[in-house]
Amino acid sequence: MRIARFSIDGNVAFGAVEGDKPDELVLDIIKGIPFADFELSGTKVPLGKVRLLPPVLPNKVVAFGRNYAEHAKELGNEVPDAPFAFFKPSTSVIGPGDDIRYPSFSNEVHHEAELAVVIGRMCREVPRERVKDVILGYTCANDVTARDVQKREKQWARAKGFDSSCPLGPWVETDLDLSAISEGITIQCTVNGQQRQLGRTSEMTHSVEDLIVNITEAMTLLPGDVILTGTPAGVGPLNVGDEVAVTIEGIGTLTNKVIKRG
Amino acid sequence: MRIARFSIDGNVAFGAVEGDKPDELVLDIIKGIPFADFELSGTKVPLGKVRLLPPVLPNKVVAFGRNYAEHAKELGNEVPDAPFAFFKPSTSVIGPGDDIRYPSFSNEVHHEAELAVVIGRMCREVPRERVKDVILGYTCANDVTARDVQKREKQWARAKGFDSSCPLGPWVETDLDLSAISEGITIQCTVNGQQRQLGRTSEMTHSVEDLIVNITEAMTLLPGDVILTGTPAGVGPLNVGDEVAVTIEGIGTLTNKVIKRG
Repeated sequence: MRIARFSIDGNVAFGAVEGDKPDELVLDIIKGIPFADFELSGTKVPLGKVRLLPPVLPNKVVAFGRNYAEHAKELGNEVPDAPFAFFKPSTSVIGPGDDIRYPSFSNEVHHEAELAVVIGRMCREVPRERVKDVILGYTCANDVTARDVQKREKQWARAKGFDSSCPLGPWVETDLDLSAISEGITIQCTVNGQQRQLGRTSEMTHSVEDLIVNITEAMTLLPGDVILTGTPAGVGPLNVGDEVAVTIEGIGTLTNKVIKRG
Repeated sequence: MRIARFSIDGNVAFGAVEGDKPDELVLDIIKGIPFADFELSGTKVPLGKVRLLPPVLPNKVVAFGRNYAEHAKELGNEVPDAPFAFFKPSTSVIGPGDDIRYPSFSNEVHHEAELAVVIGRMCREVPRERVKDVILGYTCANDVTARDVQKREKQWARAKGFDSSCPLGPWVETDLDLSAISEGITIQCTVNGQQRQLGRTSEMTHSVEDLIVNITEAMTLLPGDVILTGTPAGVGPLNVGDEVAVTIEGIGTLTNKVIKRG
């Protein structure tokens, strides 16, 4: 199931996305929230009539660095033996179609297309064999990064945490599973229609299971929290006016424009 | 005014702390929340009869590294020219009297006593002269750190973000002002009654104004967000069974015990 979050007539709701043709998608409004038992209401709205929102409002976004060897190498970095994590704050999250506002303190903003894992239930110290049980589904993310600031500042709160630096969407796909991700689904990033990044999740150094075991050893994850699993090679600059799209096989496409920060 | 957050009979409320003698403090229950206009109810409860909670539930905690030169040097680090920030997640926050649970993945957990700034209103791109307007008040913090993990992992999400690594409290003091902090108030940390850290806020490399200008250039702060302003020299190990206390002049004392993670 594809679960979207949207606003219509000033109300916010979740809905199950139905249909295959992009222009004919319909939302079946969910009664309640998708982090517990829920039912479809049967009330349907054309997707084109609503504004899609970030599919979840995470309390925290935990992102893992250099989890694709080719990307670590392209920036001249070593591939780390163990995963390492940083946070993107809730205030950095935007939805599909929202604008990435180019920050005033950077001259080098990069796209980083990533598979995002959406956590479905409160959890900590999750054993490997239970990882599948704490996952609600998957969505597309763009770990937008002020590369010049990242190089200058030892910790990446500003470089990777500025407002609008975490586009998520367009919806959460709950039918993907860990074996499909481990076998490899494609992650693609285009800028103005031109391909910039192309990778497969099978290239991850540390698997989704590894990452969730690693982080929950230290901290509690809450429903709606998001794990970013690293970006494949091909990162590069975004400029004001660009349209950047992250497409993940079996999920969909997350598109955002880059605008001048007003 | 000292604003505490507490639970009584299963309800959570804010209250103004009245009195001077530790054993005779009373809470005047606040109608509403301290982030907007509020009144005191006149209903008073002895502080000894309630459980104090973290004085705010931050959406994010932004912490600045190496902001006291002597502390940077004691760990063999350079004093950075510009501030750099990292996040501690909301799930790391505990209140006065709550236990610090020694994490399973570390053998070297350190205390770091810090002055915490509590944000009172939503803000971004705050100019220096408006910084005072976005601050609700100040509290004590302990930026508990898994030092061995911090050395190993390039980004500090696990080292400084594990559950219970961010004690805050005992309350928010709203009468302190920026000039007092710049002139210098003392920050002290004791472990089992023995002094470990002693510093003055006048030793900060970057002032509270600098830090808030720096972070809000990049991101929106929300009411209840917390800024940690760095720790003075004297950091050192905490062991299971220890009682660690952070005392800041004009605010109060935040005390927590260290227990084995169960």
